[in-house]
Amino acid sequence: MPTSGPRTFAILGSGALGGLYGSMLAKAGFDVHFLLRSDFEHVSRHGWKIESHYGDFKLPDVHAHASVESMPPCDVTIVGLKTTQNDQLKDLLPQPTSGGGDVLVLQNGLDMEADSAAVVGVDRVLGGCCFLCSNKVGPGHIRHIDYGKIAFGEYGMEPPSVTLRGERLCDALVQAGIDAVLEPDLQLTRWRKLMWNIPFNGLSVVLNASTKELVEDTSSLDLVAEVIAEVHQAAAACDAAIPEKMMQQTIDVTKAMVPYDSSMRIDYLNRKPMEVEAIFGNPLRAAKRQGVAMPKVEMLYQELKFIDARNRSAV
Amino acid sequence: MPTSGPRTFAILGSGALGGLYGSMLAKAGFDVHFLLRSDFEHVSRHGWKIESHYGDFKLPDVHAHASVESMPPCDVTIVGLKTTQNDQLKDLLPQPTSGGGDVLVLQNGLDMEADSAAVVGVDRVLGGCCFLCSNKVGPGHIRHIDYGKIAFGEYGMEPPSVTLRGERLCDALVQAGIDAVLEPDLQLTRWRKLMWNIPFNGLSVVLNASTKELVEDTSSLDLVAEVIAEVHQAAAACDAAIPEKMMQQTIDVTKAMVPYDSSMRIDYLNRKPMEVEAIFGNPLRAAKRQGVAMPKVEMLYQELKFIDARNRSAV
Repeated sequence: MPTSGPRTFAILGSGALGGLYGSMLAKAGFDVHFLLRSDFEHVSRHGWKIESHYGDFKLPDVHAHASVESMPPCDVTIVGLKTTQNDQLKDLLPQPTSGGGDVLVLQNGLDMEADSAAVVGVDRVLGGCCFLCSNKVGPGHIRHIDYGKIAFGEYGMEPPSVTLRGERLCDALVQAGIDAVLEPDLQLTRWRKLMWNIPFNGLSVVLNASTKELVEDTSSLDLVAEVIAEVHQAAAACDAAIPEKMMQQTIDVTKAMVPYDSSMRIDYLNRKPMEVEAIFGNPLRAAKRQGVAMPKVEMLYQELKFIDARNRSAV
Repeated sequence: MPTSGPRTFAILGSGALGGLYGSMLAKAGFDVHFLLRSDFEHVSRHGWKIESHYGDFKLPDVHAHASVESMPPCDVTIVGLKTTQNDQLKDLLPQPTSGGGDVLVLQNGLDMEADSAAVVGVDRVLGGCCFLCSNKVGPGHIRHIDYGKIAFGEYGMEPPSVTLRGERLCDALVQAGIDAVLEPDLQLTRWRKLMWNIPFNGLSVVLNASTKELVEDTSSLDLVAEVIAEVHQAAAACDAAIPEKMMQQTIDVTKAMVPYDSSMRIDYLNRKPMEVEAIFGNPLRAAKRQGVAMPKVEMLYQELKFIDARNRSAV
């Protein structure tokens, strides 16, 4: 284990994402502290059970915490909460970052790092996109069925660049078996992911459909392609120049994907708040600031806000 | 009864619309022949039961026909079929129009008269929009809860104008207690109705919502207003200059409306084909021919085609 890199990790949001990556880090010998809510009792007693296409494993002995009060200061705090819970960050981040550690925000959408930066300062924040198909299927039980990559980089750095701390964090993640890549330009990475998230998260909820159904019907596939083109154009206006061929690749990769419910659809079906502002509102506003309209993305946003409001009010 | 006006009517599509207007004509003494399918036995035996906010009545003695073969040539054939059934017109129209009578197409959408004109010739076709809230609630049983107006005019006449036969037909309808208005410009009338049908039929299905829910939520109301503005602009490009104030009026009238499921939503919930081409496809193509895009209307069209295909394939 490298002596100069991060050794201790706090995991805020120990679900399908935080539970998986945290367990992989712990299994590799890092000191990992999980904040747990409903699973606290179970994980304290039985640890994690990870089913992963990388290989199944159990992690019986876990540093489980029911609140941040008991967490030590950590080198890196990974934020794996849903963005709809970001109002909790002001209470959750101070303790694990009290030793001056960094924050790695692994959340969906655009510019959600701003909420963590507001607590610990922009110079301590990195952000990343996760490309993984993973679900929590029971207490302390993660099923990771496909992909797994983390593409991350510095947040709010002008010009965008790679840092030594980023390289060391990347080394630690890779050492844990995580397919981590340090990106020089986080915003570019985020817009690339939005090219998938915006059409497939949005339409899977509005049309109540799997990603497979969306790419197999000609009408919805046309719409998917147009939405992707809108995001591509908005990204370019926001200094994220994505190669044109990525538009078609985004569709092709989905056609080849294991049939999967998008995270937003899972939230919707579980009557949980959907990440509408992170994935739709923030990109729309960023594009608008550059004078670019995304009419079909905006319509998805309006439809999702309607659906989300009704979904939250339903008992 | 005027001697020079139409006296005999054939009703093709004896549902919530054709059943109501045909019964009103028959009650007023006109000779009305109904083509019936599933309700044939019931209506032959028991006649029509009409609950209407104009006044309830029963029509015990009805000219009911199980097929067009037994129908006499009529002065006016009213087409009240769903536009999704227009492939039947080539078989249904020849017999009742065999005496040279006219056709009044009371169907939703734009330019659906073309299907009737293809059978009997454009010079024998009139078209009209119905503004009514009416449902068939049982065999031979219509419940007409609000509105009732027919705004109709000549189809395919250049320049748009009023004819004597139109006036005589209007007189006959008015004599039957129907709120009929002869319009000089059918296309203008149709685009005005589309300003309601496109947002409210479409979004009520996509968002699975009543008209009331759509105007009470700020996100969906924003979207409704934008869709109406797109239709207004497309109409203008198609020589249908609708006063600007009609955009807000379309919303206001819906806010004041008896809570009502749109016809498209009723079709959807009953797993019947939706009138997607009549209400969305034809207006989109007409606007496109004039170089006008309607991105949010187009997205509704794409979403509805996806939903309709799945709805039809579901057993």
